[in-house]
Amino acid sequence: MSERIWTAALLVIGDEILSGRTQDRNVAQIGTWLNVQGIRLREVRVVGDDAAAIGEAVNILRARNDYLFTTGGIGPTHDDITVDSIAAALGVPVVVHPEARAILEAYYASRGGINDARLRMARVPEGAALIPNHYSGAPGIQVGNIFIMAGVPHITAGMLAELTGKLEGGAPLLSRTIGCNVAESEIADQLAQIERQHEGCQIGSYPFFREGKVGANFVVRATDQARLDACVDDLNAALVAAGFQPVDGGI
Amino acid sequence: MSERIWTAALLVIGDEILSGRTQDRNVAQIGTWLNVQGIRLREVRVVGDDAAAIGEAVNILRARNDYLFTTGGIGPTHDDITVDSIAAALGVPVVVHPEARAILEAYYASRGGINDARLRMARVPEGAALIPNHYSGAPGIQVGNIFIMAGVPHITAGMLAELTGKLEGGAPLLSRTIGCNVAESEIADQLAQIERQHEGCQIGSYPFFREGKVGANFVVRATDQARLDACVDDLNAALVAAGFQPVDGGI
Repeated sequence: MSERIWTAALLVIGDEILSGRTQDRNVAQIGTWLNVQGIRLREVRVVGDDAAAIGEAVNILRARNDYLFTTGGIGPTHDDITVDSIAAALGVPVVVHPEARAILEAYYASRGGINDARLRMARVPEGAALIPNHYSGAPGIQVGNIFIMAGVPHITAGMLAELTGKLEGGAPLLSRTIGCNVAESEIADQLAQIERQHEGCQIGSYPFFREGKVGANFVVRATDQARLDACVDDLNAALVAAGFQPVDGGI
Repeated sequence: MSERIWTAALLVIGDEILSGRTQDRNVAQIGTWLNVQGIRLREVRVVGDDAAAIGEAVNILRARNDYLFTTGGIGPTHDDITVDSIAAALGVPVVVHPEARAILEAYYASRGGINDARLRMARVPEGAALIPNHYSGAPGIQVGNIFIMAGVPHITAGMLAELTGKLEGGAPLLSRTIGCNVAESEIADQLAQIERQHEGCQIGSYPFFREGKVGANFVVRATDQARLDACVDDLNAALVAAGFQPVDGGI
């Protein structure tokens, strides 16, 4: 009985991420949120403000995943080319969405009024629906299996909240973390053996060096709680047998 | 006179990045470092601990960029499959590098001794050279135009320091930032016009909302200092003419 795995890709768009000026937060935010929806973030790409690069990534990623999320490039300025690039990749025209226009007119009524730059944010690929944005007016956009989100992380967080529970997914990926003051290279054989013995479980090993001590957090992931717990029990026992003290929840 | 642009790609490897458990820092770190080397980070991909996904990305990214950096998956445990996956993608065998073996034997002499798991970190694609790691023994690896680095950001920082000034690149990308308490949508037309008037310059617009005020930082990028300064002068003048107070260096 093999369960269907639902997957998503994320395309992060923006020169400022590639230049190192801006630290991306959306990969971790969207990856975490997708797990709770029962959807696995399978791949991420980051490209600059370049229509050809955006188009290439969009067409590959949307075809081989259940969902594609994009972040960045939906503001009012000349370097915001996400909507145009995605519409071109889909082969559809860009149209003004009447509801988006109404939202922006209302939002900017008390903020200096609407203008051409602000109206850019009402433009969507033909056939798109809107994702509400309670922070700054300009909505996110859904077209087919593509979800076009803001670059600013807290605005994207609000859009994700709107989508919570609305996307079809599988069983959420569960995880438990065991921390231990052990060099991962001392326990590597046991980790591999335990993972092999527990079908449906993965063990990730994440070393650290803190307060003069080496250690590692071992993250066990599975979609089945009983299998997850059984694997964690064996891992704990192996660490104790090797003379170490595992810490539930990680260090 | 069009200058050759040197480009790099980065492949971030690790389930922990996609799951959201670990916040990536290497994109910003490597993007920033590459700018100083006169190399542009053009694209990034993040994939899980999956040999096929690693191999596909490696072969595409190394072919269409001058350099390919990878981070993650070079530790001693079963989920560290970067070296094997890259060797498979290149069609070369994995061999034990004698110098890497000697480094690890010396490093672990006072840390419990060498073992099979630790020796995994001496394995390299055939034909590879080493990148010194002064923090934790296990070296980075160079094979062709691929630079295989650690996932832990401060270890990668040490490896980057070893490579500083050693990669051929072009003119470094320069940037200046002008901050202003203006809604970017009020100044969007001027930004687009100024960018068009200044060949070789790009203007990025990065809005913020802070202490109850909207604002934006405008980042002007160019490889030529005189062109950069001329563009910034025009941007400053346009902001003043529109009734705003630009702040050199950003807000």
